[in-house]
Amino acid sequence: MTSIKNTATLLVTCPDQKGIVAAIADFLLQHDANILHADQHQDAENNLFLMRVEWDLTGSKINADNFAEHFAGIASRFKMEWQLKLAQKRPRLAIMVSQYDHCLADLLHRHQGGELACDIAMIISNHLDTARLAEFYGIPFHHIVVTKENKAEAEAKQFALFDAAEVDLIVLARYMQILSPDFVKRYPQRIINIHHSFLPAFIGARPYHRAFERGVKLIGATSHYVTEVLDEGPIIEQDIDRISHRDQVEDLIQKGRDLERIVLSRAVRWHIENRILPYANKTVIFD
Amino acid sequence: MTSIKNTATLLVTCPDQKGIVAAIADFLLQHDANILHADQHQDAENNLFLMRVEWDLTGSKINADNFAEHFAGIASRFKMEWQLKLAQKRPRLAIMVSQYDHCLADLLHRHQGGELACDIAMIISNHLDTARLAEFYGIPFHHIVVTKENKAEAEAKQFALFDAAEVDLIVLARYMQILSPDFVKRYPQRIINIHHSFLPAFIGARPYHRAFERGVKLIGATSHYVTEVLDEGPIIEQDIDRISHRDQVEDLIQKGRDLERIVLSRAVRWHIENRILPYANKTVIFD
Amino acid sequence: MTSIKNTATLLVTCPDQKGIVAAIADFLLQHDANILHADQHQDAENNLFLMRVEWDLTGSKINADNFAEHFAGIASRFKMEWQLKLAQKRPRLAIMVSQYDHCLADLLHRHQGGELACDIAMIISNHLDTARLAEFYGIPFHHIVVTKENKAEAEAKQFALFDAAEVDLIVLARYMQILSPDFVKRYPQRIINIHHSFLPAFIGARPYHRAFERGVKLIGATSHYVTEVLDEGPIIEQDIDRISHRDQVEDLIQKGRDLERIVLSRAVRWHIENRILPYANKTVIFD
Amino acid sequence: MTSIKNTATLLVTCPDQKGIVAAIADFLLQHDANILHADQHQDAENNLFLMRVEWDLTGSKINADNFAEHFAGIASRFKMEWQLKLAQKRPRLAIMVSQYDHCLADLLHRHQGGELACDIAMIISNHLDTARLAEFYGIPFHHIVVTKENKAEAEAKQFALFDAAEVDLIVLARYMQILSPDFVKRYPQRIINIHHSFLPAFIGARPYHRAFERGVKLIGATSHYVTEVLDEGPIIEQDIDRISHRDQVEDLIQKGRDLERIVLSRAVRWHIENRILPYANKTVIFD
Repeated sequence: MTSIKNTATLLVTCPDQKGIVAAIADFLLQHDANILHADQHQDAENNLFLMRVEWDLTGSKINADNFAEHFAGIASRFKMEWQLKLAQKRPRLAIMVSQYDHCLADLLHRHQGGELACDIAMIISNHLDTARLAEFYGIPFHHIVVTKENKAEAEAKQFALFDAAEVDLIVLARYMQILSPDFVKRYPQRIINIHHSFLPAFIGARPYHRAFERGVKLIGATSHYVTEVLDEGPIIEQDIDRISHRDQVEDLIQKGRDLERIVLSRAVRWHIENRILPYANKTVIFD
Repeated sequence: MTSIKNTATLLVTCPDQKGIVAAIADFLLQHDANILHADQHQDAENNLFLMRVEWDLTGSKINADNFAEHFAGIASRFKMEWQLKLAQKRPRLAIMVSQYDHCLADLLHRHQGGELACDIAMIISNHLDTARLAEFYGIPFHHIVVTKENKAEAEAKQFALFDAAEVDLIVLARYMQILSPDFVKRYPQRIINIHHSFLPAFIGARPYHRAFERGVKLIGATSHYVTEVLDEGPIIEQDIDRISHRDQVEDLIQKGRDLERIVLSRAVRWHIENRILPYANKTVIFD
Repeated sequence: MTSIKNTATLLVTCPDQKGIVAAIADFLLQHDANILHADQHQDAENNLFLMRVEWDLTGSKINADNFAEHFAGIASRFKMEWQLKLAQKRPRLAIMVSQYDHCLADLLHRHQGGELACDIAMIISNHLDTARLAEFYGIPFHHIVVTKENKAEAEAKQFALFDAAEVDLIVLARYMQILSPDFVKRYPQRIINIHHSFLPAFIGARPYHRAFERGVKLIGATSHYVTEVLDEGPIIEQDIDRISHRDQVEDLIQKGRDLERIVLSRAVRWHIENRILPYANKTVIFD
Repeated sequence: MTSIKNTATLLVTCPDQKGIVAAIADFLLQHDANILHADQHQDAENNLFLMRVEWDLTGSKINADNFAEHFAGIASRFKMEWQLKLAQKRPRLAIMVSQYDHCLADLLHRHQGGELACDIAMIISNHLDTARLAEFYGIPFHHIVVTKENKAEAEAKQFALFDAAEVDLIVLARYMQILSPDFVKRYPQRIINIHHSFLPAFIGARPYHRAFERGVKLIGATSHYVTEVLDEGPIIEQDIDRISHRDQVEDLIQKGRDLERIVLSRAVRWHIENRILPYANKTVIFD
């Protein structure tokens, strides 16, 4: 399961017009690239064309070094924004966590089992509770206390760690701190959070308590990219579970843990596999 | 399926204390009542005891005429609020609908097939679109146009129809009008509405459009009792369906219709079967 | 919702190799066809490439009359099996039904509301129960009694009706008769059945009774193309609902009706929208 | 969450007749027991009455030592089979596992977080892979190799370990060995297995491969008590996930792991909380 494929994935966003698919398909054919997966989406409202295409690098004349040069003409003609991702260059993650360790333990176990094709560069926590878990899985652990007073300083430490480890993606695995606008701006579409409600219901604090209070019959969890407005970023994945009048707040919290684990792990996996293309505060999830 | 059982159902709400179950069970045993179903719920926060018990009237010494008299002692001792419902006295429904007919058609078809043990006394609409459907199923149809100006007058006509037909329950099957406070007060816990979102997300108008705009990955529907605050009444049932970036607003509306049908029909059936006990702006749904 | 698009859909199956997407995309570009949707699937095990591409006929130089001629070169080069479907040529359905009318009523209501872009040419039943429903929706109804003795004769009558009405798709909406091998062979991948279990569990008769007997916690429904082996054809769609020990066989049957309606209607819609490509006794469902 | 309640739970099975609830409720009232939860089920087909009642031992005159004596009259009058369980006497588990460690890791993490009110007495494996995980959570680990030749001997070792540790429940957390009839007989309704399909579909080996082969659109998992017939014991819980033609066998296995974890952990929790009453090869799950 952990054998790493030798493939490249191109993600493209551009204004919709005739000829885009033909241009990309021809380009890849001329460079002897065998397409493994291709998926596209057209957004009529915004007149956007979005595409994901993955090909085998083995035997292809195109590679990471010469792609930009060769592709420049097409990119320019169709006014494309594009990214090229190589399966063999595994993204590097930082996981931030507070005291609740269920999402962290889940991600670490999945990573160890080969489900997540990434490197976990570090765990950062404002508590010490998860240090032993980090050690068990052999991941560097950094304890950084965050208070109202030292927030800027604490984040500066975090940035330094991210830079030193060349972190690509930051996962908030129930990290009970609000990031500063500066933090969020540094990592656009590179911070994934798990919120313990089906957004946009119960934005903000204590969603399970408020769900219990309201008497809903379903609880949910939502993974999303973090933007400057709390819990308003592009939604990546959501799921729900059924509850009844018999369930107390504690039961909601327990059932919610299973939702949070699954909904966060899907978002992380899809991001790592370059399946997510955000636009207009939404996400396209390519199959 | 449509053979009507000869049973009585007692719904009880009272302060929680020792001895309630023993008192009710002894009472029924002494009156030769064979218990068919019993279910109870205790709400610690509000110190409430809620119970539903159903028994066979055949061979029982207790019946609708003498129940109140015999039960008075227990009711008074435990400070009970109680209702007694007879399966053979079928509740009488009024269904209110605008132009969207999918919930109405669904309820009528279920009723005809014996799934809903009630009488449908009338259909009231502010449009003529559903008149032919009403005729097909043999249900009286009343066309009452509602405008800002004539609202009080229109509701007066509706009340008169409800009174004349001895209506027990009013079902808003996508009735796109807001009822007056006076209307709502007249029928406490006797008006069921279907809202086309998973409340409390997307309260108010055009929930599918707002769900599309927000980029959610799930859409929902909620059936609830109508109270004075719009979409804030006790929730009876909710369900969701998965959507993707490929789904346009029209697809949300189409998928939503299936949710609305199922979520409304469950609420109506549970109400008819006396399975719902509202308290503290929530509902207990007895199995 | 019922405005009919002026589009063409091409479904292609061929051995997988380099250059297929480029060839099709170039072909459409050269004929001024604006691609609206394209989706593809590669099956590594069978070395198959499967594609669905839909384009706007308005302003395109390619149309139903000249497509085969112009496309012949590509089709031959890549050894393609292909079908071209026009949105404006609505498929013609025959619905076969016995006494249970819930799937039929559901399909008719969806069709009337514009959810199914097809013509319903006829309803055939071995009972008279659904005649009134057919009349309400204005669909020709044919009563053909089927017995062990007259089966061949009855099917001959059915074939004659299908031929006269140029039927493209036959929907078994709880038609409690087993079709002859001859019937099945005449309409390959053109007969859709709904089976009331999650296949391959509970193949054959009385699946709800057997599910109850086995004590399962979920019931299901499966829509599939009919092949010569009972309940073994390519599965199109499945869904399930949760049950508990409180549910009796009658409850399973009731909950199952909602599953059957939804699972059958999805299969019919996907077939009509040319989203299904069967291969190797499976189906690809293009989004 | 981990504070242990001081409650007793009575599970009763007997022929259905009038007066059972009254007898039990009176009995508890006379012994000053405050009922916290009560739930019952009647099975008409087998004329059975099944009940679960939980009460607060604090302040009650009835306790574990004198219950049998005091309850003997009622038990005899109604021909009851009954069990009394004390929350403070935590059940002792043995978990058996082969190489796949996802269910084991999940159970250990839940246990550590207080979700499972039991003691995990040991982990037994025919492989060494999970030894480190056992050590991390501080659970005794026993490596017992099982071959065709030494099966009886290996099981004898296991029985000795179970006896020495006073094991109440054996959980097969993806233990890829078939237990001998003798093993099964020793622990009736005390062995819980997780099977990776929605039984009764895909009984036996390699269910994901067979699901892929059959082209199903849903995969499932089933937890059940082990009986002498493979995969035929009373089902405790089932759940499913949706798959598509894009999912390869590896994807089914990965999605299945999430199902297996959740479905097994629910069964274990319900057993520990004395919510399961098996009868007629089915289970009643009390809420």
